[in-house]
Amino acid sequence: MDYRGLFEDAIDTLRREKRYRVFADLERIAGHFPKAIYRDSADNEREITIWCSNDYLGMGQHQKVISAMQETAGKLGTGAGGTRNIAGTNRPLVELERSLADLHRKEAALVFTSGFVSNEASISTIARLIPNCLVISDQLNHASMIAGVKQSGMEKKIFRHNDMKHLREILEAAGKDRPKMIVFESVYSMDGDVAPIEEIADLADEFNALTYIDEVHAVGMYGPRGAGICERDGLMQRIDIIEGTMAKAFGVMGGYITASQPIVDAVRSYASEFIFTTALPPALCAAAHASIEHLKSSTVEREGQQRQAQRAKEILGAAGLPVMPTNTHIVPVIVGDARRCKAASDMLMDKHNIYIQPINYPTVPKDTERLRITPTPLHTDEMLFELRDALVSVWKNLDLPMNIDTSQLTAQALNSGDLVLPTTGG
Amino acid sequence: MDYRGLFEDAIDTLRREKRYRVFADLERIAGHFPKAIYRDSADNEREITIWCSNDYLGMGQHQKVISAMQETAGKLGTGAGGTRNIAGTNRPLVELERSLADLHRKEAALVFTSGFVSNEASISTIARLIPNCLVISDQLNHASMIAGVKQSGMEKKIFRHNDMKHLREILEAAGKDRPKMIVFESVYSMDGDVAPIEEIADLADEFNALTYIDEVHAVGMYGPRGAGICERDGLMQRIDIIEGTMAKAFGVMGGYITASQPIVDAVRSYASEFIFTTALPPALCAAAHASIEHLKSSTVEREGQQRQAQRAKEILGAAGLPVMPTNTHIVPVIVGDARRCKAASDMLMDKHNIYIQPINYPTVPKDTERLRITPTPLHTDEMLFELRDALVSVWKNLDLPMNIDTSQLTAQALNSGDLVLPTTGG
Ligand SMILES: Cc1ncc(COP(=O)(O)O)c(C=O)c1O
Ligand SMILES: Cc1ncc(COP(=O)(O)O)c(C=O)c1O
Repeated sequence: MDYRGLFEDAIDTLRREKRYRVFADLERIAGHFPKAIYRDSADNEREITIWCSNDYLGMGQHQKVISAMQETAGKLGTGAGGTRNIAGTNRPLVELERSLADLHRKEAALVFTSGFVSNEASISTIARLIPNCLVISDQLNHASMIAGVKQSGMEKKIFRHNDMKHLREILEAAGKDRPKMIVFESVYSMDGDVAPIEEIADLADEFNALTYIDEVHAVGMYGPRGAGICERDGLMQRIDIIEGTMAKAFGVMGGYITASQPIVDAVRSYASEFIFTTALPPALCAAAHASIEHLKSSTVEREGQQRQAQRAKEILGAAGLPVMPTNTHIVPVIVGDARRCKAASDMLMDKHNIYIQPINYPTVPKDTERLRITPTPLHTDEMLFELRDALVSVWKNLDLPMNIDTSQLTAQALNSGDLVLPTTGG
Repeated sequence: MDYRGLFEDAIDTLRREKRYRVFADLERIAGHFPKAIYRDSADNEREITIWCSNDYLGMGQHQKVISAMQETAGKLGTGAGGTRNIAGTNRPLVELERSLADLHRKEAALVFTSGFVSNEASISTIARLIPNCLVISDQLNHASMIAGVKQSGMEKKIFRHNDMKHLREILEAAGKDRPKMIVFESVYSMDGDVAPIEEIADLADEFNALTYIDEVHAVGMYGPRGAGICERDGLMQRIDIIEGTMAKAFGVMGGYITASQPIVDAVRSYASEFIFTTALPPALCAAAHASIEHLKSSTVEREGQQRQAQRAKEILGAAGLPVMPTNTHIVPVIVGDARRCKAASDMLMDKHNIYIQPINYPTVPKDTERLRITPTPLHTDEMLFELRDALVSVWKNLDLPMNIDTSQLTAQALNSGDLVLPTTGG
């Protein structure tokens, strides 16, 4: 049996399809974010600027957050020491859960080791506990949500991305009496578009459905206290389960859900991915807690991010670069071809010391390959102009499309493609 | 639709079956482990001794490990800032993977957010990539391994715990030509028994099977460099994939696999749970790295643990307490009834300031409910005598069985029970 050959073949397939990934070896510099040290394959080091981080507000280098981690590690040690049940429930974790419930104005919260695990564990457990539950899932949901839906073993229906007519059809076909749960995101991270949350909540009321929203790319960044798009739009009480991460705008690691006490208690009591794993270290909990509390009252980070994202769209757009229009902090610039998208990313790094990861199929549909830019409050105007000049130079060098209409790009790609994309978001 | 009522019912079921869990709120005290502050339901605080931690060697409070976390947080910030592919591959993580490959003398290693995720992602991905793979899994495998086997979607066979005759039967029925993978643990954490690794490797050779071992409860603690039971017994090269955690004896958080380059690269490239989640923070990686490197050369922690575990068995056994015989650092004391097991645990906490979690069904078979004691090198002889006196007092108070033959307990329970236990380990 040639097992080794089998795995080599699996890798070769990816290389042939230009989907083999090499991870850039980066060393962020606290206090100088978005600057980092890049080490190339020959082990040479140089300073570069990161333009694609999901540490959206730079909170991962905020002094309060760093100090909370350092102090708690000093006082309580580096690990939780056990599962939640076996000596692993630590004080900072209990306090973090209270802070999260308060953030979303829900009865309770539950922390997981990651946002991926929170989706997988919660969606599968909630759906499984509802007899005959129909899970209704947006076409562009993240891989972790797809994993949760699949693991629940319940029947599922996929609705076209953000398409309320299609969602209504599915709800009507299921009827008002059948138990169901609608699963969707607020901000979709690759296109930067936002779900029609109020319409979904209205439909859920009309058809007696539970609602589950992933606010991973919104928490910390939207709403007066940074609770996300539902808070901004006054809709937190209309959604049953709100899921988020502490690894993006909050700058640390870990995922969570907030919901009513019985839902949270049921997930706590039944979800295997929650029960049978070591709890989040106290130092991480304290750091995340500090970040969340800071962003409950400080708005300067959110405002700075919105301002720099808006400027990026204007400056890059004015230079003729194909910026996809979005209402969020995410600025996708379209390349439309996998090989050239990778080449553009490589040239930015090699010639301009700028790091932006190419986003190719299957993360986004074919023909919409892109550079996904995430300006933070710490990206200065000067950096923005450098970015523009670098992009224009690369675009000319590689003869990439400029001055094109980008407004229909996603819709086109989606309508021509599969109803279910394999994966999104990583 | 009364969704709330549904979840309340699910919780009530657990209460009725005496399986509802309340997590103890603990605050470990770095420098004073195994001491911790316990906060009871009335918010009163007092100092207690933890006797059931999976921070088996107390490395979570080791000064080198704490300093590595603090310094790296200070230099690189608190989070990774993205998935491995999107700006999240940080230098300490790359170095940690090298250190892990070296620890197990394998070509490569891959780090996950937890041991749970490493099993789920790796077992499912490896099995899926092998056409027509039969997964052969020990009956007592951990919930995370069961999740991986299930998610692979491949055919599976369960062999009776550590039963080589049964394993051979399954292999013979499958035949030498069918691709297969044998999935098992080295140290089983609830009974503290050890798999016959060499016999499994021999059978795997005879029948052309891949081998996957979970050394979560052995890494750091066995073998000259702390690589686990396979290292101790000179068997590392005979097992294809070795999985471990950084959350137990290494005292931090995160999971990993080590294997040949193509296997690791295939999991890296195909496993959704690896690709679509934020990478482990640099500060955690640096702390884990420091712990692993320390334990590669320092043996005083391992020796201290073995000595105190041995003493615990002797001292508790001599007092007539029903200690299950084991060859490892795990010391189970049998109660044999869920309600009384919980009562014993409560009385230890309330009267004696000793924290030992009750281990009930479904974590262990019915009639083998137990207190699972994990002495560390930091538990002094004095603490051991206190523990003995407290246990004897509780045993008398609750009229629990003393001076009984414990040697056949597990085997009996298993033979009378289901072939597949729902879950083990949390
Ligand atoms: C929409 C969405 N949900 C969940 C996750 C997972 O969160 P985490 O990185 O905390 O695992 C991600 C990305 O990582 C995401 O994009
Ligand atoms: C055998 C076994 N494997 C894996 C795990 C999961 O490891 P982690 O706690 O790092 O998720 C555990 C317990 O938590 C375990 O007991």
